[in-house]
Amino acid sequence: MGEFDLIARHFTRKPKRALLGVGDDCALLQPRPGTQLAISSDMLVSGRHFFDDVDPASLGHKALAVNLSDLAACGARPLAFTLALALPAIDDAWLSAFAQGLLALADAHGCELIGGDTTRGPLNICITIFGETDGRALLRSGAQAGDDVYISGHLGDAHLALLALQGQLHLPADLLAQTRRRLERPEPRVALGLGLRGVASAAIDVSDGLIGDLGHVLEDSGVGATVHADCLMTLLQARTHRLWPQCSAGAGALNSILSGGDDYELAFTAPQSARGQVLHAARGSNTPVTCIGRVEAEAGLRVIDENGQILSHKLRAFDHFDTP
Amino acid sequence: MGEFDLIARHFTRKPKRALLGVGDDCALLQPRPGTQLAISSDMLVSGRHFFDDVDPASLGHKALAVNLSDLAACGARPLAFTLALALPAIDDAWLSAFAQGLLALADAHGCELIGGDTTRGPLNICITIFGETDGRALLRSGAQAGDDVYISGHLGDAHLALLALQGQLHLPADLLAQTRRRLERPEPRVALGLGLRGVASAAIDVSDGLIGDLGHVLEDSGVGATVHADCLMTLLQARTHRLWPQCSAGAGALNSILSGGDDYELAFTAPQSARGQVLHAARGSNTPVTCIGRVEAEAGLRVIDENGQILSHKLRAFDHFDTP
Repeated sequence: MGEFDLIARHFTRKPKRALLGVGDDCALLQPRPGTQLAISSDMLVSGRHFFDDVDPASLGHKALAVNLSDLAACGARPLAFTLALALPAIDDAWLSAFAQGLLALADAHGCELIGGDTTRGPLNICITIFGETDGRALLRSGAQAGDDVYISGHLGDAHLALLALQGQLHLPADLLAQTRRRLERPEPRVALGLGLRGVASAAIDVSDGLIGDLGHVLEDSGVGATVHADCLMTLLQARTHRLWPQCSAGAGALNSILSGGDDYELAFTAPQSARGQVLHAARGSNTPVTCIGRVEAEAGLRVIDENGQILSHKLRAFDHFDTP
Repeated sequence: MGEFDLIARHFTRKPKRALLGVGDDCALLQPRPGTQLAISSDMLVSGRHFFDDVDPASLGHKALAVNLSDLAACGARPLAFTLALALPAIDDAWLSAFAQGLLALADAHGCELIGGDTTRGPLNICITIFGETDGRALLRSGAQAGDDVYISGHLGDAHLALLALQGQLHLPADLLAQTRRRLERPEPRVALGLGLRGVASAAIDVSDGLIGDLGHVLEDSGVGATVHADCLMTLLQARTHRLWPQCSAGAGALNSILSGGDDYELAFTAPQSARGQVLHAARGSNTPVTCIGRVEAEAGLRVIDENGQILSHKLRAFDHFDTP
């Protein structure tokens, strides 16, 4: 079976939202009048972003989820995406499962596959996603001194699963399954992002660890922040608390929250006057949010303990080009 | 230097056309009222689409050129693009040259880099491009029996250079340089594509060889075509004619035209009544066009010699998943 049959078989569907979908030189998209198009591109590389033997349905899910998460962080409504895929070989069962995982999440968000490219090469997945914003896109640059700092959902689960899969700690089977699902099948916070339009002053999705990602917001906004270690600890799922001492003498949990990455939660800021609206957006999207600190004029991100002492941490994000 | 510095240093520029460019979760694009967005995505893999030791400036040029060529084939005006880049290591000189080649072509077409992703991995370049169409996008599906079949520019140069680089034939230095430039620095036919809006009935860019690509037009239009071998031979650059017998006993030249690939010319169809307009579009864009045959109701693509005899050729396109 050739390249073109391959595309047709697993990925071609009749376009619903696009004027023209998969199969011509370009796809055609008609944004609604008065809207802007939000665009993001993410590339996932084997051995870097996922294990070679990862379940292909989960991989399909995650490849789209990380892009939907970028739309969520902009408060954009998902519209469509393109998929470019380098494959070492044709494996029909693998492709079928990958397409199933990918398209199930796409359908759940009304986000249409409109084009792409397939080629032979080391496994590489590049998705470019398109969303609509209504002129109130959430940017990284709007945080103001005095704003609250919030995190959606839980942090650290994905990193916990990663440590377990790497053999660095042992998890009970049910907890491994649960955290692994968070690592491999993250649920992008699209509904929360939409609810935060006109409410949040800045937002980002937490993909490379809280420190780095919140750091981008602070830097782009020309501000700093202080966050509370005890608030951060409440971001852990209750059941995982007791497990952390196993891996690196207590500091493991906080490190995982701060630098773990792969969480795909939203970090955002909002004026104190908007607390009621934040809560409303959280309830409306059925997403827990936690206030972890305060934006300040002084640059930098400070983590303090219950006594107000600054905790010294190697405060850095996951960087794809750092040597381990 | 980290991932983010790397992006900032080589690829971040102040956005001109986009509302928001590189550096947030999404870029924001505002198409003009009454226009549609044409979108295409192409992935280039090391060892598959280019040699490992290719000049990085040429690679930057070509990575964008193949995407601009897709816009050309749709009659879309270039607007913006995203770049996702997997790199085995950070090489500042390489990146600088790559960015120079990429952005020079981008500037020549007023096409703005608005976002992307960089990561560590086997060298892989994925560009998604956006163009504006005015409601008269050139599709693959509009060819009608009786239409003329046209090709822009010349075919076969890129394949000739490839054969020479692979040591399969010898070219004089100046001719090698000239054909190699066509292989490594193709000039997308954007101006011709814009001129053909409302004139051509169908169009495609010739990237995988004329047979395969024209075949897509015929199939999607539910028609067939007969093209003339002697017209095809005029598509060769004059200086290369005498070289072909070297490589495979005369049939080499025609094979290269039909299946060579990497030409990035436009293949298009237009009603016979539009011949004057086709010529006008060709002159207006300073692009030679050649009529090579006629669309017919009978399915399939037939190549005939000067006596009307059908030439038997292994009529197939380059397929990235065919084993050699």
